[in-house]
Amino acid sequence: MSTIADVAARAGVSKATASRALSGRGYVSDDTRDRVETAARALSYVAHSSATSLATGRTQTIGVIVPSVGRWFFSELLTGAQETLLENGYDLALFGVPERSTARRQVLDDVLPRRRFDGVIVVGIEPDSPEMAQLLRLGRPVVSVGPHTARMNAVSIDDAAAARIATEHLIDLGHTEIAFIGGATEADALTLGDARRLKGFRSAMDAAGLDGRSSVAPAAGTMPSGYEAAVDLLGNRRTRPTGVVGVCDEVAIGTIIAARRLGIAVPTELSVVGIDDHQHAEMFSLTTIRQQPREQGRAAVRLLLRQLDDPDAPVEDVVAASALVVRSSSAAPR
Amino acid sequence: MSTIADVAARAGVSKATASRALSGRGYVSDDTRDRVETAARALSYVAHSSATSLATGRTQTIGVIVPSVGRWFFSELLTGAQETLLENGYDLALFGVPERSTARRQVLDDVLPRRRFDGVIVVGIEPDSPEMAQLLRLGRPVVSVGPHTARMNAVSIDDAAAARIATEHLIDLGHTEIAFIGGATEADALTLGDARRLKGFRSAMDAAGLDGRSSVAPAAGTMPSGYEAAVDLLGNRRTRPTGVVGVCDEVAIGTIIAARRLGIAVPTELSVVGIDDHQHAEMFSLTTIRQQPREQGRAAVRLLLRQLDDPDAPVEDVVAASALVVRSSSAAPR
Repeated sequence: MSTIADVAARAGVSKATASRALSGRGYVSDDTRDRVETAARALSYVAHSSATSLATGRTQTIGVIVPSVGRWFFSELLTGAQETLLENGYDLALFGVPERSTARRQVLDDVLPRRRFDGVIVVGIEPDSPEMAQLLRLGRPVVSVGPHTARMNAVSIDDAAAARIATEHLIDLGHTEIAFIGGATEADALTLGDARRLKGFRSAMDAAGLDGRSSVAPAAGTMPSGYEAAVDLLGNRRTRPTGVVGVCDEVAIGTIIAARRLGIAVPTELSVVGIDDHQHAEMFSLTTIRQQPREQGRAAVRLLLRQLDDPDAPVEDVVAASALVVRSSSAAPR
Repeated sequence: MSTIADVAARAGVSKATASRALSGRGYVSDDTRDRVETAARALSYVAHSSATSLATGRTQTIGVIVPSVGRWFFSELLTGAQETLLENGYDLALFGVPERSTARRQVLDDVLPRRRFDGVIVVGIEPDSPEMAQLLRLGRPVVSVGPHTARMNAVSIDDAAAARIATEHLIDLGHTEIAFIGGATEADALTLGDARRLKGFRSAMDAAGLDGRSSVAPAAGTMPSGYEAAVDLLGNRRTRPTGVVGVCDEVAIGTIIAARRLGIAVPTELSVVGIDDHQHAEMFSLTTIRQQPREQGRAAVRLLLRQLDDPDAPVEDVVAASALVVRSSSAAPR
């Protein structure tokens, strides 16, 4: 197996120059880079990342912690983060560990301190949790994706605004009986993001003088949970609202499926609005607030790489754009 | 920062023993392990994985290549693989790279040869592709998940049998006009797995003497694509089948949604059967053939770790179980 010394000798440069040319870090002229790359190819030279790592102090690997790999938001975010890391020569070490799981404790207590990741991206972690404090104590760049309280490097959307805009869309169409489906089935499980969406719904209803006519049906943020909550809510003809704001698109789609099962026409008898613009939103003609988790994953990586380039870079709090997308699940009430 | 030498001195053992005790590799007595762990905790010792890696020749990292992170099958598989790797002290380096993408070429040509992963798990790669040959040339353990042809370490289901059982279920109920939705919209994009499912469908129809009454509506393996193909297929009352086998659950669910839109009652006017037991199958009461991608991810890791423990272990070809799950999307034709 060829060494970096063999490559340097063949290219007629020093080992340090050959290493710079191949790693892409530090300046070498184009001509030198070409000579070194040609020599490396001729010798079938392959850099050993472990040795490179000891030499540079970098592992070129970023740890990413998500509560689930399968949910749409997280998988889109992972896709964006991984693409951007790959473009920049970094690997993504994946930790899909549910909240309050043993695996999650293991990752935080044991794996992260041992592995010398260059930085960590953490998704959907509660900002005032002991976990966040533990991550920051690692002394490496950390970027948070999701709602947060403290000033830190983070990417989020304005959750309250998203829910307020969704609710105002129904109010503008003339709806007065509007329900919010989502939040949490247990009070202690209410996430900061869902709490802010609920608050945004209530503030829109309050501002329109409709606070007495709003109702909240708790549901987890999944299609089956939204379906079940909607069957209960819509099943009672006397208390049935004419508009529903889902805490997320999966809940809103569960609501549309429940309405179809119950023979309630969308949008003539029921308008439904979601938040996300999930991959299935279009198929269900769902009016929604678009957030782009893939872009949020890209933005998180850019924030992290900036910290790696310049440890003194100022803290940046990116608020990702979201916009109302009107499809045919919402209309004026009959 | 404490070193392994500090830990060894405090515990009164050799550096090699301290290293064995902390890495979990190689024998040490329980008493010694306790002494070393106590010393490591007292000194806040954290192993450096790069240094460990140079010493052991292992990076404790497995590269996993999937064509997409977001699709249900792949995200379930990733979840199972990552859990099992974590349990065994390994990290998962994620490469979600679509077929025929530049990123995929970069991973195969550049990233994998440079990174010293202990092994690679690759999902849904065509067995006779140049990519598979390239992977095997890495000289490290490779496990393939998905249909394959050559004898290699692999996890798959019997795709032909899955589709045959789904089709036979409809034939047993009395259906004679049965369509298969799926395959591929372009001939050169037909995957080995889909080709085998199509073959399983045709062999069941042939065996029942119904080969003249089968039809195939091409679709990609997604819900929207299944929906579109079903709208075309079911829209024509004269050629409408009474039963549909979807190449996967996403296509079958798209078919059910299309039927609802067209006012065709499932199962009284149309029976639909899928393959997967997708997370949404139950919500759509979908009769399906259950395959368990999370278990397949676990099995792939176990196969890989076995190769790492014993490079001479015989090649093993795991065929994962699949079973008919009858729900209410299928019934006898009227």
